Amino acid sequence: YEHQQASLARDSHLPAVTLDGVKMRLMANIELVEEVVSVRDNAAKGVGLFRTEFLYIDLKRFPSEEELFEKYKEVVELLTPKPVTFRTLDINGDKVLPYMKGVEEENPALGLRAVRFCLKRPEIFITQIKAILRAAAFGNTRLLIPMISCVDEIIKVKEIIGKAVEELKKEQKVFNQDIPLGIMIEIPSAVIIAEDLAEHVDFFSIGTNDLIQYSMAIDRRNRQVAHLYHTMNPALIRMVKMVVDAANKKNIEITMCGEMAGDPLNLPILMGLGLRELSMNSMSIPLINQMVRRLNAVDTRAFVEKVIKMGKASDIEAFVKETYGNILSD
Amino acid sequence: YEHQQASLARDSHLPAVTLDGVKMRLMANIELVEEVVSVRDNAAKGVGLFRTEFLYIDLKRFPSEEELFEKYKEVVELLTPKPVTFRTLDINGDKVLPYMKGVEEENPALGLRAVRFCLKRPEIFITQIKAILRAAAFGNTRLLIPMISCVDEIIKVKEIIGKAVEELKKEQKVFNQDIPLGIMIEIPSAVIIAEDLAEHVDFFSIGTNDLIQYSMAIDRRNRQVAHLYHTMNPALIRMVKMVVDAANKKNIEITMCGEMAGDPLNLPILMGLGLRELSMNSMSIPLINQMVRRLNAVDTRAFVEKVIKMGKASDIEAFVKETYGNILSD
Ligand SMILES: [Mg+2]
Ligand SMILES: [Mg+2]
Repeated sequence: YEHQQASLARDSHLPAVTLDGVKMRLMANIELVEEVVSVRDNAAKGVGLFRTEFLYIDLKRFPSEEELFEKYKEVVELLTPKPVTFRTLDINGDKVLPYMKGVEEENPALGLRAVRFCLKRPEIFITQIKAILRAAAFGNTRLLIPMISCVDEIIKVKEIIGKAVEELKKEQKVFNQDIPLGIMIEIPSAVIIAEDLAEHVDFFSIGTNDLIQYSMAIDRRNRQVAHLYHTMNPALIRMVKMVVDAANKKNIEITMCGEMAGDPLNLPILMGLGLRELSMNSMSIPLINQMVRRLNAVDTRAFVEKVIKMGKASDIEAFVKETYGNILSD
Repeated sequence: YEHQQASLARDSHLPAVTLDGVKMRLMANIELVEEVVSVRDNAAKGVGLFRTEFLYIDLKRFPSEEELFEKYKEVVELLTPKPVTFRTLDINGDKVLPYMKGVEEENPALGLRAVRFCLKRPEIFITQIKAILRAAAFGNTRLLIPMISCVDEIIKVKEIIGKAVEELKKEQKVFNQDIPLGIMIEIPSAVIIAEDLAEHVDFFSIGTNDLIQYSMAIDRRNRQVAHLYHTMNPALIRMVKMVVDAANKKNIEITMCGEMAGDPLNLPILMGLGLRELSMNSMSIPLINQMVRRLNAVDTRAFVEKVIKMGKASDIEAFVKETYGNILSD
């Protein structure tokens, strides 16, 4: 095992390229500025998902634009020219701000969370957007909106971004508005109308954790239904295909940032579906990198064509292990 | 208005046939045996959805097979030869049995509800199944399983039905096992793997209320996100199309029993998608019947081809009103 870890660490800076020459971009999910060290150590090509809740939780009040900007700028400067993808505030659902007394919700996961909350409280949203656009003047930055379920929401988001730009101009602050705008695809309706949503954004980021949760109607923290949670769920795999196909058709970027992306067992499927960028816990990158270097991209295509026809998670898992077990196990 | 009601009542027994001769089967959703009167008065072609929770709630304990059988037999006998579709116990989520202390769930709508609960408590499930199979000896009966999310669940359900049949044989009771078995399509994953599920059942019943709830990730009883709930949601319409197409391809029956089915505004879309059976509140049937008689099925096909390309609920609603407003408004 030690030997294995050493070789993983040694090889982690090798390019993530398949045997047949297909490049994968492996990115990191982070939550804290301090994690930038781990992003570098594990040779991530950037931050695919910066969860921005922490500062809101830590401060015990809503942070000011200035406070947010300082932190965001720090991360961007540390990592540039590698991109940092800021996901706007994704509170409620499972993360509640203790200082914000909201309405009690019977099913918070199906409630006023993430962008829904932000659109109801535009003053909070615009503060964060302004901080991100200002940080964007200091390096490679992307803006990512969680929990988009319909076209109207992304239109409203863009109006607020427009307002943020106006205010920043008026305030004569240094900022950069020419950054890619993306949305999380993590609600089933967004999968179904992906082509329509693609008209309004520059990239998609598939959030598999919530996507499984909603697609299967199972709270992923509820043990009583945990037996229904499976990343090799055939519905999930087909939905990922639908999203990738929509992104390709509409010629926008596509990435994935759920837990699914960090498990080497899923890699042949994700590559076969056409994903070329994955974002995960930094610690998972070396193993995924090694796995990439052992795969043939063209084989994964043929492999996925069979997977996509399978209707049971257990069959898919068995087929993955049968086909790629030898690569995975050592 | 009175004149209108009188003409509706007078015409409610006319066959629900479009101008171009396409027949629609309009069925009733009921909860109580007493509602059979209203089923008849409104000329429903049967019961498309018998919600069986009531007896469990009313008795303040789990009913016995005998108690269930007596009630079920009564409904079946009253309505035969019209079919009665028994949906098995759909508790938890929003309906909790006060005498059953369960685990507290943070998101009950995403928890151990309906068939999930029944599969964890097979002794409760099998009691109900036996009562339904016995009632089926007295008239036209269908069996409908709610909240199916994957193939494994329906396989397990069929094992329990097999067990019920064995027990009934051993007990030498009169019963009928040759009844159509269907599943509710109300979870997004079930839409995506509809073709796979179709291999195991005789019919689908689309439950639009829950399907919108999960597809949009909105609790339909939460006012804070009510602005996102819309039956003309483009994702919902496309998902209905996917399910209808899968059912047709696999040659199984397809029906719809959500609130969407009882709103005349939705009828051109539902007919255009190919639905020929709808189940709704009995009271809605005369109006839907009238609406059917004013439509051309072939026109709704062409109409839906345009609807399916629209990405916004508001655009779809405007288009429906523009196209069918004159038929609807009088
Ligand atoms: Mg999420
Ligand atoms: Mg339901």
